[in-house]
Amino acid sequence: MRFFSDNAAPAHPTVLEAIAAANRVDTAYDGDQWSAQLDGAFSDLFGTDVRAFWVTTGTAANCLALAALCPPYRSILCHRDAHIEVDEAGAPGFFTGGAKLNLLDGAGAKVSPETVAAACDAIRDDVHQVQPAALSITNATEYGLVYRAAEVAELGDLARQRKLSFHMDGARLANALATTGEEIADVTWRAGVHALSFGFVKNGGLNAECLILFRTELGDQIAVRRKQAGHLLSKGRYLAAQVLAMLQDDLWLDNARAANGAAKQLATAAPHRLVFPVEANELFLRASADEAAKLRDQGFDFYDWGPGQIRLVTSWDQQGADLERLAAAIGAL
Amino acid sequence: MRFFSDNAAPAHPTVLEAIAAANRVDTAYDGDQWSAQLDGAFSDLFGTDVRAFWVTTGTAANCLALAALCPPYRSILCHRDAHIEVDEAGAPGFFTGGAKLNLLDGAGAKVSPETVAAACDAIRDDVHQVQPAALSITNATEYGLVYRAAEVAELGDLARQRKLSFHMDGARLANALATTGEEIADVTWRAGVHALSFGFVKNGGLNAECLILFRTELGDQIAVRRKQAGHLLSKGRYLAAQVLAMLQDDLWLDNARAANGAAKQLATAAPHRLVFPVEANELFLRASADEAAKLRDQGFDFYDWGPGQIRLVTSWDQQGADLERLAAAIGAL
Amino acid sequence: MRFFSDNAAPAHPTVLEAIAAANRVDTAYDGDQWSAQLDGAFSDLFGTDVRAFWVTTGTAANCLALAALCPPYRSILCHRDAHIEVDEAGAPGFFTGGAKLNLLDGAGAKVSPETVAAACDAIRDDVHQVQPAALSITNATEYGLVYRAAEVAELGDLARQRKLSFHMDGARLANALATTGEEIADVTWRAGVHALSFGFVKNGGLNAECLILFRTELGDQIAVRRKQAGHLLSKGRYLAAQVLAMLQDDLWLDNARAANGAAKQLATAAPHRLVFPVEANELFLRASADEAAKLRDQGFDFYDWGPGQIRLVTSWDQQGADLERLAAAIGAL
Amino acid sequence: MRFFSDNAAPAHPTVLEAIAAANRVDTAYDGDQWSAQLDGAFSDLFGTDVRAFWVTTGTAANCLALAALCPPYRSILCHRDAHIEVDEAGAPGFFTGGAKLNLLDGAGAKVSPETVAAACDAIRDDVHQVQPAALSITNATEYGLVYRAAEVAELGDLARQRKLSFHMDGARLANALATTGEEIADVTWRAGVHALSFGFVKNGGLNAECLILFRTELGDQIAVRRKQAGHLLSKGRYLAAQVLAMLQDDLWLDNARAANGAAKQLATAAPHRLVFPVEANELFLRASADEAAKLRDQGFDFYDWGPGQIRLVTSWDQQGADLERLAAAIGAL
Repeated sequence: MRFFSDNAAPAHPTVLEAIAAANRVDTAYDGDQWSAQLDGAFSDLFGTDVRAFWVTTGTAANCLALAALCPPYRSILCHRDAHIEVDEAGAPGFFTGGAKLNLLDGAGAKVSPETVAAACDAIRDDVHQVQPAALSITNATEYGLVYRAAEVAELGDLARQRKLSFHMDGARLANALATTGEEIADVTWRAGVHALSFGFVKNGGLNAECLILFRTELGDQIAVRRKQAGHLLSKGRYLAAQVLAMLQDDLWLDNARAANGAAKQLATAAPHRLVFPVEANELFLRASADEAAKLRDQGFDFYDWGPGQIRLVTSWDQQGADLERLAAAIGAL
Repeated sequence: MRFFSDNAAPAHPTVLEAIAAANRVDTAYDGDQWSAQLDGAFSDLFGTDVRAFWVTTGTAANCLALAALCPPYRSILCHRDAHIEVDEAGAPGFFTGGAKLNLLDGAGAKVSPETVAAACDAIRDDVHQVQPAALSITNATEYGLVYRAAEVAELGDLARQRKLSFHMDGARLANALATTGEEIADVTWRAGVHALSFGFVKNGGLNAECLILFRTELGDQIAVRRKQAGHLLSKGRYLAAQVLAMLQDDLWLDNARAANGAAKQLATAAPHRLVFPVEANELFLRASADEAAKLRDQGFDFYDWGPGQIRLVTSWDQQGADLERLAAAIGAL
Repeated sequence: MRFFSDNAAPAHPTVLEAIAAANRVDTAYDGDQWSAQLDGAFSDLFGTDVRAFWVTTGTAANCLALAALCPPYRSILCHRDAHIEVDEAGAPGFFTGGAKLNLLDGAGAKVSPETVAAACDAIRDDVHQVQPAALSITNATEYGLVYRAAEVAELGDLARQRKLSFHMDGARLANALATTGEEIADVTWRAGVHALSFGFVKNGGLNAECLILFRTELGDQIAVRRKQAGHLLSKGRYLAAQVLAMLQDDLWLDNARAANGAAKQLATAAPHRLVFPVEANELFLRASADEAAKLRDQGFDFYDWGPGQIRLVTSWDQQGADLERLAAAIGAL
Repeated sequence: MRFFSDNAAPAHPTVLEAIAAANRVDTAYDGDQWSAQLDGAFSDLFGTDVRAFWVTTGTAANCLALAALCPPYRSILCHRDAHIEVDEAGAPGFFTGGAKLNLLDGAGAKVSPETVAAACDAIRDDVHQVQPAALSITNATEYGLVYRAAEVAELGDLARQRKLSFHMDGARLANALATTGEEIADVTWRAGVHALSFGFVKNGGLNAECLILFRTELGDQIAVRRKQAGHLLSKGRYLAAQVLAMLQDDLWLDNARAANGAAKQLATAAPHRLVFPVEANELFLRASADEAAKLRDQGFDFYDWGPGQIRLVTSWDQQGADLERLAAAIGAL
């Protein structure tokens, strides 16, 4: 039973249907009717004018955004456990042409205004040291913690004061919002976010993510950078259709609620083992190697996460019976 | 009726079925059972050991290959009408970190050993001038002409003498082979090609192309570069399944034959208008603006191609009735 | 006798004295009293506010400027014989992170507004083709021809209309102005030039060139890029002092007049052999291989320049007796 | 009295004389007789075949070397206080096209085999995490500590086991050797170092540093990269002559001994204030803001170094009287 990654979950049937429906003659690249609807659909969702670009990976969304927000000779502030630092093969350096990541500490991969301010203050204001140009946070974080709108707004205020651009990696933003019930506008542009990597693939999509620009003047640049990076698919209609299907009737939120609910159910079975509170669809549990082995013997698949810890990730399609069995197995350790 | 681009054609039903079949729990990224079969499937096809990497665009396939074959301080020889020069937004420069394209002339976007040799000879052998490191050709070319195996081998010999790596952009290689009936091995690695961008999307695929490395020692580097460029999809199984479906029972060749046959049918209707012989699925016709307008009035969609010329591209799914109507319409001009 | 390059000429004694005078305790990098005078000295010379940056090579001056004027995904229009295309090892691609050079034709390495406009018009306005961002010209050109202020202004007007930044490689700008007698302001910022690589090394300097920004808002960026490219010398005072010495009492103009005069003297000896009119300190002469050999036998050192042509370059220190002997030798061929 | 940086010290008279002596007609770029002697002179010094390249800054030497040793998609292990991390404006990212610095801890900016091994072991061996390709150490370190030959050899052994290239930033290597009396071969190539940035500017040079390649097969690449980065001076003879002058009669060692002796003299005056042992020409002293102010009031110029600490750097030309006065002033605090 799969609990090792939401990337391994299937695409939602509605997404597959949308792809099939897009399988007819149309213009190439992003000239199709679905791609043409993206800006409008996301502008409606966010309640403000945005530019929206489909891409096939979160890495592409993150790093196209960062390339537009940070020149080659400056740096991006982010948590040292951020996906862009840890799991993107150095893509930020490649896309920006040499910009650095300036790494911040913070429990559960969350950064606070204080750590951001301190990191900025530690940099001499001269040409020898790399000056920061942007701040990037992940919501929900790599450890499944959530930034509330007020927290993002505090960081957004600081970013404005420090003249930093502000990017959010929202690979699991749906999960964050499913937990807080906050408005998506409040946790993004109203809180000062300039660009958002809006994740769909971990949440029932097949292979379409979306880069949302609240600084719409960057749109033309991103359109070109997307092409230059080989990310303008010649049959983009299948990506656009997926994304629209995810937005329809709030499927993205429903899927996230299902995944979060599954995680909560497991968390309830082992409250004393939780390394972090469960605020999205990831659980980090204390478990010995023996205990982990026992779970695996029963058919549960997951990652070890450093010594004495395991990571479980739930998905939109998680089956109730599987969850009950895993909850019981954890409880019985 | 669509004759403006094979990118606009639908995906073949077999490809859609393969995607649906891949829609189940599996490992993430390229850890799935289909991705694991790619090296073997292509090694069988080519009759030699290869490394095969799915990507979503020809630009990504081309430029990942070029980045591995040409360092930032050298150049890639290619035709001045090559897709990498004309239609990839400068992707070669971005992926390589600054390498130049050294542009060659030649009718119908074909390059000859003589032009390659002359271009090399024109470069002073010092550190001031950019020394060539690679040769890239497109087969079939951007004007629908085909390199036979013997022609590629001549270029391959020259490349070896000049210590150049050799890349083939095979966005329409299937169409070339459908015409010549030659062995795919003879026109690629046996002719000295080191890396091949093997196109499927124009030929009935949905969004999977394949980069084939005959220099297998470059495989580990390409795997990392693919990730760093944001081209390692988290649900790669849908791409791998598409590619395998295209290989199954030579669907890729059947589709190409259908598209080529459609082009031949149209060519027969207007032999005196042909700018180039029709060797694949593209026709370049002499037609005045008035004549082009007449065709458009009858519902035919295509591109103008400079003054007094139009481009028609046929696809794997072209309907016989449409072809007859277009052939008649051209004949009646 | 040296006629092969002005790079091979000695530094002017005044420059050496300035270096010796700078050899005392001061602050490091560009914190010294001489560096601090640069902006002011050049603002006085140009009659407008400028930012001035010493660098050690023309390649660095050119490419730092181009990196600030052209993003990685756009192109720089220049002549196909431009130094940045032919003799800088691909530095523009490296410094910009992938931008292309879009090559223009024109006799004597001069570009006309018509060729610039035609090149722009030939580019489809979409994300597939690389859009131009900048125009770069060399004055005097690589063939020793001069752009008058009115010619530069025509190009400057066009650049403004086409939203192109405008860079001038002035490796031999002193020679151009020594010929025309025009004001330096008229041929640069008043004509629409945004950034100038102001050459001193070919003109009696030791190893200091200067990058002049008329768009002063780019200054802070250039300061950082200079450091990131390894061009901020830790003892920059020796460079600043050289440049100031060259400006003092118009030494830069005197040296250029001397070199130009030498070229004129040689040109007079062989008017019928001139490939181009002599407008600076370079002569391109028709001469057979036998004739070239005869000159070399008499001790004259110069470059062959393609079949049947030779290049002679005169320097600020050229001796009258050498010139008379060479003029006589050419005349006697 | 200057104690804030050895960059601010004058050039040694012998160096100025060498520049003056090089001020005559010769070939351009690195075609001169002095540049031609570099490989041989350094091969003699090191007792093995090397390739030697003059450059004008340590940043250029470091980052040209790193670009040859580390591809864009891998990382360089270095101390978090290393000059390449802290004081080069992100040059490593720019020169390599995106490679990361993987930062290590260690007192006094020294790294141990254990920290290197632990950093390597912490990286998952997959394409998501950036794999290390090179190790870079600074000798003497940024805090004036010295790696003995045996220590370097331990790191070199580890580098070989881990398949890492090994670079040494030797901006103050002369100072390190003046202290240890070890052979320069023992602390470099015999200890496994592949490339060395050999500093002269802080040690009495004017503006010439040298990049030494023990992996001579990288020489041709470095020659091109130097040009592409704008670091091939058109009158390179002045740099080559400086470097040869520094090697002549071991001037580089004499100068370093003088600077080190000055530092020792000051250290003796304040043994209880030393933050680190004095092994080269830098002193880090505990001193309150009041104490620092007192020293400044007496005309001594130096940097604060974090709260409660000051940095003093001695130079090759330090005057005995100044040293005595400073030693006394420190003693009297």
